[in-house]
Amino acid sequence: MNPEEFRAAGHAVIDFLADYHASLSQRPVMAQTRPGEVRAQLPGAAPTEPESFARVLSDVEQVVLPGLSLWQHPRFFGYFPANADLGSVLGDMLSTGLGVLGLSWQSSPALTEVEEVVTDWMRQLVGLPDTFHGVIQDTASTSTLVALLCARERTTAYSASRAGLQGEARPLVVYTSVYSHSSVQKAAVLAGFGNDNVRAIPADEAFALRPDLLEAAILSDLEAGRVPCAVVVSTGTTTTTALDPVAAVAVLTERHGLWLHVDAAMAGTAMMLPECRWMWNGVERADSVVLNPHKWLGSVFDNSLYYVRDPQHLVRVMSTNPSYLQSAADGEVTNYRDWGIPLGRRFRALKLWSMLRTSGIEAIQARLRRDLANAQWLAEQVRAAPDWQVLAPVPLQTVCVRYAPAGLTAEALDHLTQAWCARINDSGEAYLTPATLEGRWMVRVSIGALTTERTHVEQLWEIMQRHAAEVAQSMAAGV
Amino acid sequence: MNPEEFRAAGHAVIDFLADYHASLSQRPVMAQTRPGEVRAQLPGAAPTEPESFARVLSDVEQVVLPGLSLWQHPRFFGYFPANADLGSVLGDMLSTGLGVLGLSWQSSPALTEVEEVVTDWMRQLVGLPDTFHGVIQDTASTSTLVALLCARERTTAYSASRAGLQGEARPLVVYTSVYSHSSVQKAAVLAGFGNDNVRAIPADEAFALRPDLLEAAILSDLEAGRVPCAVVVSTGTTTTTALDPVAAVAVLTERHGLWLHVDAAMAGTAMMLPECRWMWNGVERADSVVLNPHKWLGSVFDNSLYYVRDPQHLVRVMSTNPSYLQSAADGEVTNYRDWGIPLGRRFRALKLWSMLRTSGIEAIQARLRRDLANAQWLAEQVRAAPDWQVLAPVPLQTVCVRYAPAGLTAEALDHLTQAWCARINDSGEAYLTPATLEGRWMVRVSIGALTTERTHVEQLWEIMQRHAAEVAQSMAAGV
Ligand SMILES: Cc1ncc(COP(=O)(O)O)c(C=O)c1O
Ligand SMILES: Cc1ncc(COP(=O)(O)O)c(C=O)c1O
Repeated sequence: MNPEEFRAAGHAVIDFLADYHASLSQRPVMAQTRPGEVRAQLPGAAPTEPESFARVLSDVEQVVLPGLSLWQHPRFFGYFPANADLGSVLGDMLSTGLGVLGLSWQSSPALTEVEEVVTDWMRQLVGLPDTFHGVIQDTASTSTLVALLCARERTTAYSASRAGLQGEARPLVVYTSVYSHSSVQKAAVLAGFGNDNVRAIPADEAFALRPDLLEAAILSDLEAGRVPCAVVVSTGTTTTTALDPVAAVAVLTERHGLWLHVDAAMAGTAMMLPECRWMWNGVERADSVVLNPHKWLGSVFDNSLYYVRDPQHLVRVMSTNPSYLQSAADGEVTNYRDWGIPLGRRFRALKLWSMLRTSGIEAIQARLRRDLANAQWLAEQVRAAPDWQVLAPVPLQTVCVRYAPAGLTAEALDHLTQAWCARINDSGEAYLTPATLEGRWMVRVSIGALTTERTHVEQLWEIMQRHAAEVAQSMAAGV
Repeated sequence: MNPEEFRAAGHAVIDFLADYHASLSQRPVMAQTRPGEVRAQLPGAAPTEPESFARVLSDVEQVVLPGLSLWQHPRFFGYFPANADLGSVLGDMLSTGLGVLGLSWQSSPALTEVEEVVTDWMRQLVGLPDTFHGVIQDTASTSTLVALLCARERTTAYSASRAGLQGEARPLVVYTSVYSHSSVQKAAVLAGFGNDNVRAIPADEAFALRPDLLEAAILSDLEAGRVPCAVVVSTGTTTTTALDPVAAVAVLTERHGLWLHVDAAMAGTAMMLPECRWMWNGVERADSVVLNPHKWLGSVFDNSLYYVRDPQHLVRVMSTNPSYLQSAADGEVTNYRDWGIPLGRRFRALKLWSMLRTSGIEAIQARLRRDLANAQWLAEQVRAAPDWQVLAPVPLQTVCVRYAPAGLTAEALDHLTQAWCARINDSGEAYLTPATLEGRWMVRVSIGALTTERTHVEQLWEIMQRHAAEVAQSMAAGV
């Protein structure tokens, strides 16, 4: 495709996307697709002759679009908000269209320097001290893996340069809450710690990690001759946005020399509001922190910020320096390839930079406060409604609910919960994620799509009551 | 930013990018930027009030663009071709603009199913048997890490579910060539094997791994009570595009039960030409293969294809299944989150799909053959020119050269080589990567930018001779 063909086709893409965003609220939120349905509409082999881009775009419209669950829909309340602010979309389009790679500073200096600037902007915005240095990773899963790899190496005085984890006489142990995200457990086993050496510490009645039990676990491992290595706490767990007590945990990690990693993937965005900063009190004592602008903040996926206090440690674990990547500037510059796993790097700073500039901080803060207020409003409605329950504190934008008419067994209640949630999702009216809490099903309402206003939350509440009542009725009627 | 503002600004982005691509050849290839120069032009904090997107775009033009080394330039011969076919750019723009995430099949079914289709198209195109199943990762570095993690777990009968690598009595060992990419060593140490357990097997005079020495190393480790775990071979090494003997290595990995991973990150694209398939003869016996459409093929970064023979093994190592990600469709569908490290996933299949369709296979093959012929042409010129040397076989599109006038010490020759290469890069006329081969500096000419025609290679050859002669003269004159 030459630049003039690109110009014509590109204008069509922009119009298509502008229309898509303008018409989102008229579409079903969840894809109404059967497994294999999209695949069956596509040819089994690549074409020998070129096709026009118009045909590709038409397939996107006819085949792909009906097969998408619409994360940008104003009635998307599933998983977590993964916003795609249109200013950040444009920044990402520029990144893609420029087609440059950051293997080293030299391979495209601006790619590195804009990343240094924008990660520092974000550091200030969430109130981290200037002892922290940032880098953009693809996801929080990767950031947490990087944190645990660094923890492993620090604890073993760089076993990687010797026999690795296999050369250690005593097993290293990682601690996290029972409610931490599945990526923490995954990162620990990928890093080689093994399931037996990951401790899931119980939580209190607000679903936050209990530091007393953490301390007991550390002491018991020390007693047994094991080596406590790292603690991962969450500011905003996935299930309920519970807040682990960072400061209390920092006392323990400092006392026993453990790495402290704070997973604020979802809730880190709220730290742009000074009134929320208490939620991660003590964070300045962490070794590493992850927060995802690609979630609630709205810098389109993928865009995960990883902050560390000691970048030299990161470099020591991650660095490679083959001759073809060396350059005269190396002593004076940051080579971000040494701050993460991949060698090749996209110009991911552009989308965050473009979003922050075209939004302005005040407007972003106003939007976040809107979402927090919407969550409080919904929680109040639920609490006030007969047979409805709010199951966890609501410090942020997620409300965990259950409709529990009297007289149901626990199993019947589970069945009812899953059924009304599935019915709403199938209807396309809204999208909600069911999840388990203390072994029983409930429904998470995660508020925060860019276009979600109070009216959409009001609609949701009506939709929830209607479907839940109907399902309960047919269950009662034995249908 | 609302959809109508996006429409207007988006059209400006498209025009900017079309002009950028049309005018690339008039710009200096390497950024003429000093360390810190871009950063110094940017404000130290994010703006409180929104700025117009026009200002962002103007900064991209005035501040960012001069700070980029232009990978899409027709005289870019550095590192490796990292093409950004404009059809794939449009596909990626659609992915960004749609703003959907693939946490699970259900979270956007088409994202998964188009990925299944397009990875299968590519499987056929490079001639892998249908026993292989593909997934898109961000980079080859990550793909190779995934391969070594899977190898570790297979060899230890899933130690991850027990005490991890730390519970193993005997150390696991990984084998690769001295010329394999730095990401292999990095992946092995990140996976916890430790430097002492990574064997760099020497190569033959064509810089390909020597299977006899590999076998000797495996036997000696067995003898010493260590556990041989995996071999990583390269089809197309980074330095010289050397071809490790896959079939001969497969005999050994099968005999001793090792995991065989083939790194064809760069050269895998050439397998779309039937006449090149001999280069990875035996690949069907590998456990995993990585090839990067984001390199020579031209599906804009990031787009790395990882193929495995046994996806169930991958799932067993990588799977997480928290309640909020479960869905009724799970038994019938692919959940790609279990095929890699990150949970969140972009719709990366779109760019590859769009590129293959808008290019057509025949045109892609013709372009690859053009590049191979250009490399042969250049190698002939270099070989025929007095004092110039081609230092390695040229099976693909990379030519390793040195200008070696008589009478120089090895140190002086190193100095000359680095000096003329730097002079070309500083001039902005072309971009080349210096690298070491057998301890001495040489210059890699990596041909294959989409817009690089024979005339650009002719220009390059003139540029090389001119700068090399001038530097040699001033060195001789003692300047
Ligand atoms: C607390 C928390 N941590 C980690 C993650 C994983 O995020 P990512 O998809 O960026 O790996 C999530 C979101 O799913 C999360 O809510
Ligand atoms: C042979 C080989 N393997 C791996 C890589 C790493 O590629 P990536 O940047 O996708 O990790 C490269 C390119 O730099 C390469 O040439």
